[in-house]
Amino acid sequence: MTDTSHILSRREFVKASAAAAAVAALPGAAFAAAPDKGADTSADKSAVLAEIPKMHAANIRRLQEWIALPSIAAENRNYPQGPEHMAQLARAAGFMDVKIMPTSGKAGVIGRIDAGARTTVGIYFMYDVKQFVPQEWSSPPLEGRLVHKEGLGMVCMGRGAVNQKGPENSFLSALMAFKAADRKLPVNLVLVCEGEEEIASPHFGEVVRSPEILPELKKCIGVFMPEAGQDRDGGVTVSLGAKGVVELELVSTGERWGRGPKHDVHSSLEATVDSPTWHLVRALNTLIKADGHTPAVEGFFEKAKPLTDEQKEMIGAYAARTSEATVKKTLGVEHWVRDVSWLESRMLLESQPTINIEGLVAGYTGPGGKTVLPHRATAKIDMRLVPDMTASDTLAKLKAHLEQQGFGDIEVNMSGGYDPNQIDQNSRLIQVQLATYRRLGTDPQLWPRSAGSWPGYLFTDPPLSLPAGHFGMGHGTGAHAPDEYYLIESTHPKVQGLDGAIASFVEYLYALA
Amino acid sequence: MTDTSHILSRREFVKASAAAAAVAALPGAAFAAAPDKGADTSADKSAVLAEIPKMHAANIRRLQEWIALPSIAAENRNYPQGPEHMAQLARAAGFMDVKIMPTSGKAGVIGRIDAGARTTVGIYFMYDVKQFVPQEWSSPPLEGRLVHKEGLGMVCMGRGAVNQKGPENSFLSALMAFKAADRKLPVNLVLVCEGEEEIASPHFGEVVRSPEILPELKKCIGVFMPEAGQDRDGGVTVSLGAKGVVELELVSTGERWGRGPKHDVHSSLEATVDSPTWHLVRALNTLIKADGHTPAVEGFFEKAKPLTDEQKEMIGAYAARTSEATVKKTLGVEHWVRDVSWLESRMLLESQPTINIEGLVAGYTGPGGKTVLPHRATAKIDMRLVPDMTASDTLAKLKAHLEQQGFGDIEVNMSGGYDPNQIDQNSRLIQVQLATYRRLGTDPQLWPRSAGSWPGYLFTDPPLSLPAGHFGMGHGTGAHAPDEYYLIESTHPKVQGLDGAIASFVEYLYALA
Repeated sequence: MTDTSHILSRREFVKASAAAAAVAALPGAAFAAAPDKGADTSADKSAVLAEIPKMHAANIRRLQEWIALPSIAAENRNYPQGPEHMAQLARAAGFMDVKIMPTSGKAGVIGRIDAGARTTVGIYFMYDVKQFVPQEWSSPPLEGRLVHKEGLGMVCMGRGAVNQKGPENSFLSALMAFKAADRKLPVNLVLVCEGEEEIASPHFGEVVRSPEILPELKKCIGVFMPEAGQDRDGGVTVSLGAKGVVELELVSTGERWGRGPKHDVHSSLEATVDSPTWHLVRALNTLIKADGHTPAVEGFFEKAKPLTDEQKEMIGAYAARTSEATVKKTLGVEHWVRDVSWLESRMLLESQPTINIEGLVAGYTGPGGKTVLPHRATAKIDMRLVPDMTASDTLAKLKAHLEQQGFGDIEVNMSGGYDPNQIDQNSRLIQVQLATYRRLGTDPQLWPRSAGSWPGYLFTDPPLSLPAGHFGMGHGTGAHAPDEYYLIESTHPKVQGLDGAIASFVEYLYALA
Repeated sequence: MTDTSHILSRREFVKASAAAAAVAALPGAAFAAAPDKGADTSADKSAVLAEIPKMHAANIRRLQEWIALPSIAAENRNYPQGPEHMAQLARAAGFMDVKIMPTSGKAGVIGRIDAGARTTVGIYFMYDVKQFVPQEWSSPPLEGRLVHKEGLGMVCMGRGAVNQKGPENSFLSALMAFKAADRKLPVNLVLVCEGEEEIASPHFGEVVRSPEILPELKKCIGVFMPEAGQDRDGGVTVSLGAKGVVELELVSTGERWGRGPKHDVHSSLEATVDSPTWHLVRALNTLIKADGHTPAVEGFFEKAKPLTDEQKEMIGAYAARTSEATVKKTLGVEHWVRDVSWLESRMLLESQPTINIEGLVAGYTGPGGKTVLPHRATAKIDMRLVPDMTASDTLAKLKAHLEQQGFGDIEVNMSGGYDPNQIDQNSRLIQVQLATYRRLGTDPQLWPRSAGSWPGYLFTDPPLSLPAGHFGMGHGTGAHAPDEYYLIESTHPKVQGLDGAIASFVEYLYALA
């Protein structure tokens, strides 16, 4: 498909892409040798860029070592090793006052670089990765093996390769190139890292709002997360925000309901005993309308802002230049909901808040059957929010709905979530992004908001009220999926490999200064 | 609880029991030494009974060896080792013409003993066992360890101990006692064994109806399965049939629906893509009425016979002598459906056909959440049938219902099932059971039918039209659950241990003659 991946979610979508194009057909060294294009392309920058190809092998090795240490909050895996490694990486890249910040959940990591510059920029990192099933991978997921991809080049394959260790390592590599060239950073940096992004950042607010880092973040002109922003054809999209999300479990149990059994019993008893699983099915059924799709929770859409004309124009421009057939094929979808048009499907993607079932678990889940009447049934739910909905208000509405419908006994266990965020396209952070992408030869497309989610609201909402987004050339895909990869050596003339991605961060930092 | 376990299901219920009482306070040898009580308690029988205690250690060892070899059809585990072992056991017990019978699924085993007697009796065995999770057990499930149980004595703990290897081994031990005493059996036997009972006997009809065994079965006065029929207080119940069952999976997929995705996609896409999981939830919701319980499939109750006055009397007698509080406590249940009375709850158990959800599986089922929109959702269902419902007719009605409600795309995959069966309490098989139980000092209770299911319809329906049931003293519990056991050395004056159970089969065979 074309650039849908970026549009759906900058960080969590299983990418597969296409679109416009770019200079940087030539990785790393070529950047360094490229002729000056403006006043900011100083001798300093050339010296920094010249270091990148020399560090190529070390930069790959550092990524592989990081991939070998997966921190997975849902599995409580590699804590505190994950934050300790994150802190070491930050120190190695020149961050000072690096500190592991305990939270009520997994620890964050903070640090800063005072370059004596006029401008300060915030950097957001996640050091955790998504769960994985090794059997589903064609290459060991913790090895970070270098694998050839037809039409792309050599990629590093492993869990976290693109989401988000690859791009983050490239950003750190850029900082190391400044050190190697013995050049000062053109901006000051404030780093905030978390280890629970994949469980919807339940405690990252404790890091951002801590008295040790909040005053530093307040000095920033904005916050960005390094990403592999190029789709498979080299195009880039700049999202002006993200939907919010609430992740939760609905749990129906005999214990809490006071009806049905308190432990699994023989299924023949269903003749005379209530079923917590049927109870859950009935509760779920009230959450959507008769179309089997539209949320039916009372007041759900109350705070949802309609799209502005400007946002509709962005969507129209995207729809016009993007092949519906390719997107459908990539998604394995033949019809949009209610058989709406391609344009309308993109409008819905941007404007509709949703209630989705991520998973169902009750009773016997193995092969074949087992004659039990389960005492417990769980639905894993995510709700996506648009401005001006909030996670807390939407959660409260869901609870009130269940209560009112006679399902007040069903536990609503929120595991994480973010408010939506929207940023000003005229902010310096975004304008510099657009200018940098153009300087690097791509034609960035604006998009109203990512349909996926990230905890950007912690930066965009008060007290910080900063623009926040993602930036970075380079390419990768497979976030949350098997065979996740990050492009290292590109054979595609319009897509940057590792060195080009690193160079794009050097360009961006100079442009932000 | 009292004898509910037997009432719910003779073979598959997770037992926990209590009730009336018995002579045989004295295991094995005591039986042999017991004074004659009638004409059939011949010198032959005394000689046979006298062999039982001598074989005690060998009988335990044989059971332990059998437990160590679990055949589990759902996991395709230990085939053909399971049927081969079954055949060896049958041969060792004196069966002739023992043969492993291939089917479209797992093999059955057949055999016969021609004792030159007037009467021929059919014996039904299962050699397979239910799945198990070793971590949930207090003793290794394949070890058959001898463990002390407070108030009961020494038990053999292992998967299959009571369901059904323990009682079956005791029956084989009885036959071996005849051999050891060099006495002829008082009846001829026809043995039919299957290895798919735990997946609802999908191919056992092929065994029963094969030209090699059907003529032999036609000679029988009835068919019985050995069981550990005593509850924890020594009481026994004789069921006059069993509910039928249909086990199936309902599978909703984007592939088959033609809507929603054909593979899991990012959950943000729910804004514009249909969800096969919501589709399943909506379909399930149509299967039950607004009470969250009563089947709503059109015509579901059409063929369900109401209870006769005689059946209601049996239920009334049971309810009157059984503690509701104890049953509720054992089941972990505070209320019956619709808060019906104790008596009505027992009437429902016997008379109501059901649609139960055994399990739900969709999308992400691990810890925490994962932001996917699943392409596939499955509900594992069992439906229990009463006379004169049939498995095929009920399945057809379910399919027609789904089609009519707009869910014709949802796959209905039946994995197994039986028709219900009902037998005449005046049949020789049952009358001899009652007489034998009384002779052994218990006061057997009649029960209209087991709410659980077994493939007895293959014997009770044409072309055989035989009475079929279960018989056996002794005690065990934990079928389908962890810590399943079979009582070996009883310290309870009213409950038989291993030798008493074996002796009860000797008594029954003589009584049947």
